[in-house]
Amino acid sequence: METAILGGVTPSTRPGTAPDAAAPHVVVAPDSFKGSLGAPEVAEAVRQGVLAAAPHARVTCLAMADGGEGTLDALVTSWGAPVHEVGTCDALGRPTTARWAVSPEGRTGVVELAEASGLPAVADEPLQPLHAHTRGTGELAAAVLDAGVDEVLVCLGGSASTDGGSGVLVGLGARLLDAAGEPVPDGGEGLARVARLDLDGLHPRAREVRWRLAVDVTNPLVGEHGAATVFGPQKGATPGDVAFLDAALSRWADLLEQDTGVAVRDLPGAGAAGGVPAALVAVLGAVPEPGATLVAEAVGLADAVADAVLVVTGEGSFDSQSVRGKVADGVARVAAASPARPPVVVLAGQVLLPAAQAHAAGIAAAFSIAPGPVALEDLLPRTAARLTDLAASVTRLALAGR
Amino acid sequence: METAILGGVTPSTRPGTAPDAAAPHVVVAPDSFKGSLGAPEVAEAVRQGVLAAAPHARVTCLAMADGGEGTLDALVTSWGAPVHEVGTCDALGRPTTARWAVSPEGRTGVVELAEASGLPAVADEPLQPLHAHTRGTGELAAAVLDAGVDEVLVCLGGSASTDGGSGVLVGLGARLLDAAGEPVPDGGEGLARVARLDLDGLHPRAREVRWRLAVDVTNPLVGEHGAATVFGPQKGATPGDVAFLDAALSRWADLLEQDTGVAVRDLPGAGAAGGVPAALVAVLGAVPEPGATLVAEAVGLADAVADAVLVVTGEGSFDSQSVRGKVADGVARVAAASPARPPVVVLAGQVLLPAAQAHAAGIAAAFSIAPGPVALEDLLPRTAARLTDLAASVTRLALAGR
Repeated sequence: METAILGGVTPSTRPGTAPDAAAPHVVVAPDSFKGSLGAPEVAEAVRQGVLAAAPHARVTCLAMADGGEGTLDALVTSWGAPVHEVGTCDALGRPTTARWAVSPEGRTGVVELAEASGLPAVADEPLQPLHAHTRGTGELAAAVLDAGVDEVLVCLGGSASTDGGSGVLVGLGARLLDAAGEPVPDGGEGLARVARLDLDGLHPRAREVRWRLAVDVTNPLVGEHGAATVFGPQKGATPGDVAFLDAALSRWADLLEQDTGVAVRDLPGAGAAGGVPAALVAVLGAVPEPGATLVAEAVGLADAVADAVLVVTGEGSFDSQSVRGKVADGVARVAAASPARPPVVVLAGQVLLPAAQAHAAGIAAAFSIAPGPVALEDLLPRTAARLTDLAASVTRLALAGR
Repeated sequence: METAILGGVTPSTRPGTAPDAAAPHVVVAPDSFKGSLGAPEVAEAVRQGVLAAAPHARVTCLAMADGGEGTLDALVTSWGAPVHEVGTCDALGRPTTARWAVSPEGRTGVVELAEASGLPAVADEPLQPLHAHTRGTGELAAAVLDAGVDEVLVCLGGSASTDGGSGVLVGLGARLLDAAGEPVPDGGEGLARVARLDLDGLHPRAREVRWRLAVDVTNPLVGEHGAATVFGPQKGATPGDVAFLDAALSRWADLLEQDTGVAVRDLPGAGAAGGVPAALVAVLGAVPEPGATLVAEAVGLADAVADAVLVVTGEGSFDSQSVRGKVADGVARVAAASPARPPVVVLAGQVLLPAAQAHAAGIAAAFSIAPGPVALEDLLPRTAARLTDLAASVTRLALAGR
């Protein structure tokens, strides 16, 4: 995989104190604590603890994400970049606004599917698994292309639809026509009737830029592990809907392969977000990548950890999924590849992974913020305070021998 | 305070592996987790975690205690010494047996007041705050003197009585006589009638040995913070009993001062265990000492930590009391005074003390065994497993920079 330096590092030091090259460098690179704190808030709470224990330390905070919901927030925080907003439509075609951003040097645009086409925004109506679509994300992406970026990072996850990414193409100016040459309806129901893909109206820059898809699943497009079968029910699909959508996606894969020569049916990750990668890989040459790795690259994590003596990451639940492509895994991989090989510590709402398995994944230690037996509802409001306290303990222990 | 090397260190290494002087030395010196695991079991669980993370490490396990109940068990485990048993009487004068031990070199005998005169052993009858006494502990101590020791370590705490230590003296052969020259009854009720202390029958070695009293409170003998007022009610004393016992203790202090010239009324710690230190300080020249410090000395903690890179201690609840004379405090003080100044980590069922206060007490880090939000009854059976896991994390982090 070609490596591009996408983002910059925003070092945080004590106010009024110039960075000291000899000071121990601690990198704080957490995911969000879902249902509790966003990644930037987690990072800030940890930073306070690190500085309480080591006032002379240099602390770099990088909000992380796994490519799903919250990735845009993490990236703009880590970049210190402004957020833009554009009018588009939600997964049911109703007017809405969606946010997007561009990296500081102007090269990388970020689109989060859940911004325009997310499930929560349409939860006010009964779920419509056949009708929901991703056209709004396509319109959002068009706005990013207009900004003149060289590459577009599309964060998948949180989708309401199973449209194989056809909506994204439509939002970018393509037309999906039925056998009679008429445009098909949006969503999976229309997908079943597509006979021809008309790309004449596609945004002129759509095939000039590099498309990178942050995915956090490896499901294929169709079949028993496919988008419709695995993720359809949580979007409201009945067993009958699932069969219909799976067949529509299969037909869509055939059409894409016929038009573009690219086979996406068995591509790992093509089943993400209702099959969005299918269209983007086949038509736009997009590349699905593990979201956490992509974000780590985008925020410049490798540069940051190069001289770090300690890396603190975190997430709501540290479990077996965490070391399979989630943020903790991405951070551990970057740290392990760095010359300093700093220890990586996970702070989490709950720690379910045995220490031996964490160690095998390159994580030195994992600690829960729970101060003892406690109910979830009592712990949640104390998340930031406990993170600060725990980070102070971790920092004192990690720096004790130095 | 004169320092005596009382005990030996029992190093634990992997079976079949010779100690390696270059290997990192980790000292495991926990208190018990009350209601869950004894100190030796806690130490073993932690040891397994340390070795899982650092198979090459040299691990020394020293079961600790604060001088209260469980101290005898901790000492004999750390010493690898046998336990002896002797027939005596309980706090109500009924026949019972009590355990005692002698340090490996034969110099120090250990008596735990709760063994003979403890409250739990007489809980089968209604509490008798005026009648309960410590004569059994005196008889137990006589057995230890017979063993030829040079000093006797008396662990206080857990008493059922408020007799100012008069029972201990009687058990050692003294007589407490009323104005008519007749022996008074055992317990606080007799104390109120003592007119003369007859030491003629005292055990011949009682005033030859050094008596050291492990106390974990600083209460004086009498008054609003005294033995009767503060601890009487939990032994069943009514407000009337408390007033009676406080007056009896006051009278006892006068008698002791008159006979021995030693004033014990205001001595800090004289209110421990129903006033036992009063008699032992005045008559036997005993010295009250902080229990945790005494135990740390008895097990040779200072020698053990001299070359340690990490010290792990622990207790059920790490709170503001922990850093005021409890085990964690004792361990931290010894570590801070050692040339290596190894970081001290507390593993606890619950961590209630803020990290900054722990740090101020010389403790680098404190972690709860709770893996997340969890009920006490679900956590208790997992104590050992969680200690092992947490110890592995702590060890990896502490040794990461080495």
